[in-house]
Amino acid sequence: MANKITIFDSTLRDGAQAEGISFSVEDKLKIVKTLDEFGVAYIEAGNPGSNPKDLEFFDRVKKIHLKNAKIAAFGSTRRRGISVEEDSNVQSLLTADTPVVVIFGKSWDFHVTDIIKTSLEENLEMIKETLRFFKEKGKEVIFDAEHFFDGYKANPDYAMAALAAAVEGGADCIVLCETNGGAFPDEVYEITKKVVETFKVPVGIHPHNDGGMAVANAIMAVKAGATHVQGTFIGFGERCGNVNLSTVIGNLQLKKKLECVPQEQMVNLTQTARRIAEIANVTLSDSMPYVGKSAFAHKGGMHIDGVSKASHSFEHVNPELVGNERRFLMSEVAGRSTILSKIQKVNPDVTKDSPETKLIIDRLKELEHLGYQFEGAESTFELIIRKQLGKYRPFFELDHFKIIGEHPAGNEDFSSSAMVKVKVDGKAEITAAEGDGPVNALDKALRKALEVFYPNLKDVHLTDYKVRVLDTKEATAAKVRVLIESTDGEDIWTTVGVSTDIIEASWIALVDSIEYKLIKDIEKKFKPYL
Amino acid sequence: MANKITIFDSTLRDGAQAEGISFSVEDKLKIVKTLDEFGVAYIEAGNPGSNPKDLEFFDRVKKIHLKNAKIAAFGSTRRRGISVEEDSNVQSLLTADTPVVVIFGKSWDFHVTDIIKTSLEENLEMIKETLRFFKEKGKEVIFDAEHFFDGYKANPDYAMAALAAAVEGGADCIVLCETNGGAFPDEVYEITKKVVETFKVPVGIHPHNDGGMAVANAIMAVKAGATHVQGTFIGFGERCGNVNLSTVIGNLQLKKKLECVPQEQMVNLTQTARRIAEIANVTLSDSMPYVGKSAFAHKGGMHIDGVSKASHSFEHVNPELVGNERRFLMSEVAGRSTILSKIQKVNPDVTKDSPETKLIIDRLKELEHLGYQFEGAESTFELIIRKQLGKYRPFFELDHFKIIGEHPAGNEDFSSSAMVKVKVDGKAEITAAEGDGPVNALDKALRKALEVFYPNLKDVHLTDYKVRVLDTKEATAAKVRVLIESTDGEDIWTTVGVSTDIIEASWIALVDSIEYKLIKDIEKKFKPYL
Repeated sequence: MANKITIFDSTLRDGAQAEGISFSVEDKLKIVKTLDEFGVAYIEAGNPGSNPKDLEFFDRVKKIHLKNAKIAAFGSTRRRGISVEEDSNVQSLLTADTPVVVIFGKSWDFHVTDIIKTSLEENLEMIKETLRFFKEKGKEVIFDAEHFFDGYKANPDYAMAALAAAVEGGADCIVLCETNGGAFPDEVYEITKKVVETFKVPVGIHPHNDGGMAVANAIMAVKAGATHVQGTFIGFGERCGNVNLSTVIGNLQLKKKLECVPQEQMVNLTQTARRIAEIANVTLSDSMPYVGKSAFAHKGGMHIDGVSKASHSFEHVNPELVGNERRFLMSEVAGRSTILSKIQKVNPDVTKDSPETKLIIDRLKELEHLGYQFEGAESTFELIIRKQLGKYRPFFELDHFKIIGEHPAGNEDFSSSAMVKVKVDGKAEITAAEGDGPVNALDKALRKALEVFYPNLKDVHLTDYKVRVLDTKEATAAKVRVLIESTDGEDIWTTVGVSTDIIEASWIALVDSIEYKLIKDIEKKFKPYL
Repeated sequence: MANKITIFDSTLRDGAQAEGISFSVEDKLKIVKTLDEFGVAYIEAGNPGSNPKDLEFFDRVKKIHLKNAKIAAFGSTRRRGISVEEDSNVQSLLTADTPVVVIFGKSWDFHVTDIIKTSLEENLEMIKETLRFFKEKGKEVIFDAEHFFDGYKANPDYAMAALAAAVEGGADCIVLCETNGGAFPDEVYEITKKVVETFKVPVGIHPHNDGGMAVANAIMAVKAGATHVQGTFIGFGERCGNVNLSTVIGNLQLKKKLECVPQEQMVNLTQTARRIAEIANVTLSDSMPYVGKSAFAHKGGMHIDGVSKASHSFEHVNPELVGNERRFLMSEVAGRSTILSKIQKVNPDVTKDSPETKLIIDRLKELEHLGYQFEGAESTFELIIRKQLGKYRPFFELDHFKIIGEHPAGNEDFSSSAMVKVKVDGKAEITAAEGDGPVNALDKALRKALEVFYPNLKDVHLTDYKVRVLDTKEATAAKVRVLIESTDGEDIWTTVGVSTDIIEASWIALVDSIEYKLIKDIEKKFKPYL
């Protein structure tokens, strides 16, 4: 095995083929910067022939100074029966003006004869001539042998001939694409090994995940001598996705000691993955290896006990190495010790056998039964503990609130407004606010009323708002769980509310958020005196 | 390799260790029935020692007649320094009264000395005695060798000694657990092979997905001679999850011709996975192999063209074999042909060069830019086409609506109500409704008003309602996308709305849903005359 692996990211090209993914030019530029910063070697950024929006992007990306990555444009071999120069897609690829071009061509005989409907000989010419054309233009040229493994299994001689044509055309790297994603790791190993033994140019692997084995297929190809891995950073791609590079990098760099990115960047693996998810506007899977929110989350009591004694007892790597964090989850199976540690944060005198502990666990179960979940809402959980321990008094009393949405409304097409009346120590305050949507209006009005009594609420703003419909079968009457993340610039806390009514669920979470802030400030200010 | 593989599902035990998963007794019973129906051999249903709720479940599950599956209870070897009979967890396991018990024990020397803190010899006794105890009670006993691969790598002799103790104790099957989930497929293969060659009892594999290679690790263990695979049906589990059995079954049964479940059940793979997700109340990942919504979704123009000519050109298996379906997605990269086929459904005379085609594509892009997505909302897309083609007239005019949420309200803690005034052909109708939440109230009121004019709306009800916060950084003022699924008992259709206001977004999707229904009925009734 080599000791360096070239990482080739196709989030912006193959990743954009995923259902639900649609990048603006701005999104693409942000992702380029993120990937470059992290240290990938190549960024395949689009197919100028099939997507005219890409040309604006290629024009703008040229002006960015990149530290690590080369930008590649992707396109097909020339079409059958015309010269390379006559092919408009080839011309678009030139217009993109990138240092690297990736040319894909057919290596499965069935695709040549039945899909693009040309002769086996003509396809080899198409590969060779197209590559030579770009080499003569001074480009670095990568050849993607589409369906290489299916092709090899059907007709090994022809699949190898397609690679030979690419090498003859001047390919700087030949990439074996497992396009349909159904191959097994042992066959990927065997076939890649044959290719590596046959050709002198660097060999790459481009696996898809239709059999759930893309990561293993990439790893086994590397074991067979491939030195270039094409995938997408968090696994976006057609159907079941391309290979997830964040997982491949974790496996190769941390465990096989193969350098994929500068070693000092490994601590940014999680952040890079989350940033790309944010730009793409998708929720990163909690269970994604290395970078997911749950990747180092422990729930079983014995696991928590083990990890507390020695982290490698239930962790394959230390989460700090990839910038992720260890979490102990609260739940009925978490074991009393986790819950107890939270209780003792409020009152250190409570033990696991105290009656309060049982009361709190019972309350927890009851709320979980109603649809609550505290794993992501530890501030609400702390308030529940306080309420059970008598370490709580309400900061305000709600007299009533009313929210109104109307259409049409005054000058605007639509408006939401809320009116809130609260009482603090017998003094009443009534106020109202308009907002984008009823929850936004309610949030603003409540805060405005309470700021009269608690000026420190001025620093608080909401940073995240999530709605989860719990039982979709009942459609608009279903239960919803609302999670609210708040910050005062110093801390971040999350609270939760559940109701059949989204307004009520949001209200519950909003009130918890405000109360948590007020308790937190009191603790900071007065604990030294107590 | 054997030609039959035993599938052992632990969704209810190891799966319940996943973040966000919490099963009620009813949920568990439903999942048992679903898995049994599908034909898995074993269902590990809980750990009676650590979760008292499980005892109620075990009591109730005994009364269910199962066709295929045996129920297993899970627990630890006896604790150190006491007899098996004295151990309360062992007693709980007996109380569960299942035909099968799974006993897990330590096989990694470090875990014995540093985590459970006993001697290496005592651990072997714990394994042997516990298994013998259950064998003498007439149970079928499966031994889960926790951390077997890490243990083998650290101290192969001791890891093998743990298995030998289990075999001596009477184990009916020894299962190699890849507990920390970080092993590589080639090492899983080599180590499993050694175990299979050493012991005469059936060998199982229990992989976790921390390195993203759980499926490959299961497959490679089977290649090495394992005949029993433990996982969870859709991959729930601690941290990054257990191996996804729906993927393993797809790979082994369809491609390796190894029978995992009765062959006639394979067409129910997708439905079974989706049903379990529904009971667990989680969203099944769209990109999940075989069973995900996108698993056979094609977006790239060339892919769509290829699949139209021959499905295996871009599909590793035929989606029908697993009860999933092929989908061609609409988007700017989909290529005009997909969009054109939708346009031609409305007007067969439009061609790809018609000016209408460009207008529709432009409108599509504009809406995508605003946050719309039509991949899951093809009915809204059809309405857009109709509007551009002039094949649309509004069915009603909204005069105004107003929604009110208040707390407290009358006798109830919280109430939402809506008032709607619509006009149809100059005639006005004003009405109001109460509901669980503002959207539910608005839906009811709108429908009630329109049923006066369009009685066929009585058959319609909403079956799904999804809220996606598009830009969570702006919290409660963020944009939301609402997807509504409706049915009239005959068809199912989905519509979408986007706004910063959840009420407005819901309104847009509701109106589309109603208009789609009305157009659909007109088409059915009058097309023969046109």
